[in-house]
Amino acid sequence: MSGTEPRGSAPPPATSAFRFWVPVSVRYSDLDDQGHVNNAVFFTYFEQGRIGYFDAVRKLGREAAARGETVEHAAGSRAVQVAPGATDDRLELPLVVSEASCAYRRPIASLAPISVGVRTPRLARASLVIEYAVCAEPHGLLYATGSTTLVCVDVASGRPRALPAWTIAAVRRLEPELGG
Amino acid sequence: MSGTEPRGSAPPPATSAFRFWVPVSVRYSDLDDQGHVNNAVFFTYFEQGRIGYFDAVRKLGREAAARGETVEHAAGSRAVQVAPGATDDRLELPLVVSEASCAYRRPIASLAPISVGVRTPRLARASLVIEYAVCAEPHGLLYATGSTTLVCVDVASGRPRALPAWTIAAVRRLEPELGG
Amino acid sequence: MSGTEPRGSAPPPATSAFRFWVPVSVRYSDLDDQGHVNNAVFFTYFEQGRIGYFDAVRKLGREAAARGETVEHAAGSRAVQVAPGATDDRLELPLVVSEASCAYRRPIASLAPISVGVRTPRLARASLVIEYAVCAEPHGLLYATGSTTLVCVDVASGRPRALPAWTIAAVRRLEPELGG
Amino acid sequence: MSGTEPRGSAPPPATSAFRFWVPVSVRYSDLDDQGHVNNAVFFTYFEQGRIGYFDAVRKLGREAAARGETVEHAAGSRAVQVAPGATDDRLELPLVVSEASCAYRRPIASLAPISVGVRTPRLARASLVIEYAVCAEPHGLLYATGSTTLVCVDVASGRPRALPAWTIAAVRRLEPELGG
Repeated sequence: MSGTEPRGSAPPPATSAFRFWVPVSVRYSDLDDQGHVNNAVFFTYFEQGRIGYFDAVRKLGREAAARGETVEHAAGSRAVQVAPGATDDRLELPLVVSEASCAYRRPIASLAPISVGVRTPRLARASLVIEYAVCAEPHGLLYATGSTTLVCVDVASGRPRALPAWTIAAVRRLEPELGG
Repeated sequence: MSGTEPRGSAPPPATSAFRFWVPVSVRYSDLDDQGHVNNAVFFTYFEQGRIGYFDAVRKLGREAAARGETVEHAAGSRAVQVAPGATDDRLELPLVVSEASCAYRRPIASLAPISVGVRTPRLARASLVIEYAVCAEPHGLLYATGSTTLVCVDVASGRPRALPAWTIAAVRRLEPELGG
Repeated sequence: MSGTEPRGSAPPPATSAFRFWVPVSVRYSDLDDQGHVNNAVFFTYFEQGRIGYFDAVRKLGREAAARGETVEHAAGSRAVQVAPGATDDRLELPLVVSEASCAYRRPIASLAPISVGVRTPRLARASLVIEYAVCAEPHGLLYATGSTTLVCVDVASGRPRALPAWTIAAVRRLEPELGG
Repeated sequence: MSGTEPRGSAPPPATSAFRFWVPVSVRYSDLDDQGHVNNAVFFTYFEQGRIGYFDAVRKLGREAAARGETVEHAAGSRAVQVAPGATDDRLELPLVVSEASCAYRRPIASLAPISVGVRTPRLARASLVIEYAVCAEPHGLLYATGSTTLVCVDVASGRPRALPAWTIAAVRRLEPELGG
């Protein structure tokens, strides 16, 4: 049982809202017995899109730190020291998935590369919602849409904690419509 | 980014509604870098639960055919011939996943076996909703809940088609609360 | 390209040498586009067999510690303290795979459970060879055979280190033919 | 138990023999609990390399057909008709993996893209051996080497059959050292 055939019930959502796109390779082993990408693998595609998106978020955080702004690791209270030109400091940002969903529009039956659109339609104190569009290419043929809720956690206790200020600032930079 | 820490927001749903449970093995390779089962793998657990459930549905269909009732493959219009004692006729029932969602309650961080509860809360002409509860054991510690919408398709055209009457009858046998 | 059709070249190896068998579930998502379990997944089946085998090795180690023998974590130099009745101390034994191979005999095309035979034909100071037989049931229809070389490493340095004495003793208990 | 630490036993093989390289993305879910790419996933990387390689083999076959040479689908006896300019005829070439092996040199612990070198050191009537080198970039830092034996099969019977002449010719084009 894989994802799937065109439904045609609801009109497909516009992909024009997505500005951030991550190329993703389809692997032969992603296909199942039906010759389509298995339904669970779409959540791996979302994950790959999310990782590319948060790499961009972290890059903005490092740039803020390089400008002398206070930027803290979410996993601890020490401030990040970013020397000008340093590139490999990986800003810690421990997010866990608390909810995930996918609406399958059209099966993926070939190994051609795809593109995952990523955006943040909602940002709260300790969590954010990320939306995805899986397309043949940016804004191209739509295979699936989806969403995950991510919660920022304290690594030691596992309890939710506020998103770092630099993270909120960086997401707002990527998402002008969020306002604020 | 794996599934995850206890949220505590909404109260956990009762698992008492689930009567059908499928044991599932957790594999070492299901864990990711965080030491937890990766969020996408929960949809594979749902799939394993679903396969066990539809094996039971098909078994009821074969029993109906053995009693002389008319039972049709969903993939074609020919009626199933079930000789008394025949056991290996696989009733065709092509379902595709049109929607899937998961709410993560608690991370799975060990390789102990788990159990997936499966039920059908909603049954329509050409589709059905399946709900899942991923627990340490039947009705035990709850890791996640989820849901998929499955649509019956005509294999040749890929278009939705009505669920076979034997499938509806078999699901109703497994789910007395569905009424009808 | 999955594993595969009967070859018939070499005679199948005897599975009678295997005494330790681990049941493994075949998942729907293990199948690929050819309707067979994908060739890479057999190494996951080996891994599941290996984990069951080393659980037995660790259990023998804990029993030795409970008898008062000196048993050391491989990951550090502190001796294990096992109070009589303690059951959850996980003896650390960091092994990494340095080589792996598989000979595919017959494709797995159904979701019926399988059984993985595991044995140690060779034991050296810092490494051991583990052999596998993937069968329909213990000593039953043979799907594949394989082998991995595992090296014991110091976690801090990543350098090879001698296998702990308790590990060697435990493996010898499971493998009387090894002599010594 | 993932792949692994530098061994240092045998000298690493030269990657200079590889001329064909396929870029492969490392996915977050490829990592396991040890923070390294799981040992089984290397065989998926081999598979992705192999698919790229056989796309090149098929392309040479289609070009031969376009020049008017007789080119047959391995899966049947009908000759391929390639109209000049036709690009989407997928030449059938059913290969199954009969043996696979991997030597792990160095763990992959990051999500940076990698490159898989692919070559054919041995070509027989009904089978061929493919070798792989998994590197950080073409000819770069070496993570693993490996090999698979592929057998050409008749789809209907599952029996080995001779490799099509066009396949042998195309592989020889890609591998001048093979002679012949």
